[in-house]
Amino acid sequence: MTGLMRTPIDHHVLVDAVRSPRCGAVILLLGTVRELTGEQVTEFLDYEAYGPMAERKLAEIEADVRRRWVVGDVAIVHRLGRLEVGEVSVVLAVSSLHRREAFEAGQYAIDALKSLVPIWKKENAPGGVEGWVHQSAGRGLAVRTDTESSAFKFGGVGVAGRTGSP
Amino acid sequence: MTGLMRTPIDHHVLVDAVRSPRCGAVILLLGTVRELTGEQVTEFLDYEAYGPMAERKLAEIEADVRRRWVVGDVAIVHRLGRLEVGEVSVVLAVSSLHRREAFEAGQYAIDALKSLVPIWKKENAPGGVEGWVHQSAGRGLAVRTDTESSAFKFGGVGVAGRTGSP
Repeated sequence: MTGLMRTPIDHHVLVDAVRSPRCGAVILLLGTVRELTGEQVTEFLDYEAYGPMAERKLAEIEADVRRRWVVGDVAIVHRLGRLEVGEVSVVLAVSSLHRREAFEAGQYAIDALKSLVPIWKKENAPGGVEGWVHQSAGRGLAVRTDTESSAFKFGGVGVAGRTGSP
Repeated sequence: MTGLMRTPIDHHVLVDAVRSPRCGAVILLLGTVRELTGEQVTEFLDYEAYGPMAERKLAEIEADVRRRWVVGDVAIVHRLGRLEVGEVSVVLAVSSLHRREAFEAGQYAIDALKSLVPIWKKENAPGGVEGWVHQSAGRGLAVRTDTESSAFKFGGVGVAGRTGSP
């Protein structure tokens, strides 16, 4: 199962939902809002998505995982809206026969989510507001204030301009 | 934190315990009792450990993870005693700045646990009982009924023979 939610995601429910007597391993990944990115303080984050396309991409990632690995079940849910520091932005849960496949499938799925799914975040610092960036931008780098370049992630079709995201 | 428990492990508490505002990722791994290993049906499992050494090894693995990766917190807890199919035998939770380190540290820790910590399991099939094996033995292979060879995992010091495990 995959989806987008505007209310807190219950990761406890999701991790137990993918468990199965056929499986020997479950992996859960939580993405949580960090208070610091380098030296920049985050007060809260906003996440927005191009909904229909984001939901379609999440479902495609689940299907892709099921093609590539023998998994029991897969859950990928991303939160949207305003998130405070420490809150859970994304939950990924995968069960499989052995732990190796669960780790591999989990890493693949979260990497695919970060690079392929049209979800943007805006880091709100105490001193001011940064621009919206595609969430693949924030991997330990300073946050960019341009949103244009993230459109290239989607083959230059200009999704960033079509979503209505600020 | 690390430990051994004879009662069910609350993985929900552990995954939330390692969360931190300084961290952007949490990985949880659950090891669960499978009903099938190849074509062999498991009715229930028994886990036993050489307690003091197992606890020391678990603490060493946590220290090792903290030396090798910048992590927020680490929890590794293994269940002992009789476990029914579907129950959680081991819980590993790691938080870190970014997901990459959490995945790497998590995989390292669980591999180290499986090969270094003196915990044995006995698979109880409907038709009879298998012998005790070191838990590193069961990775998708038929379960061995000899326990002798698992002693080599500990440098040939014959831990298997000294533990009092049946």
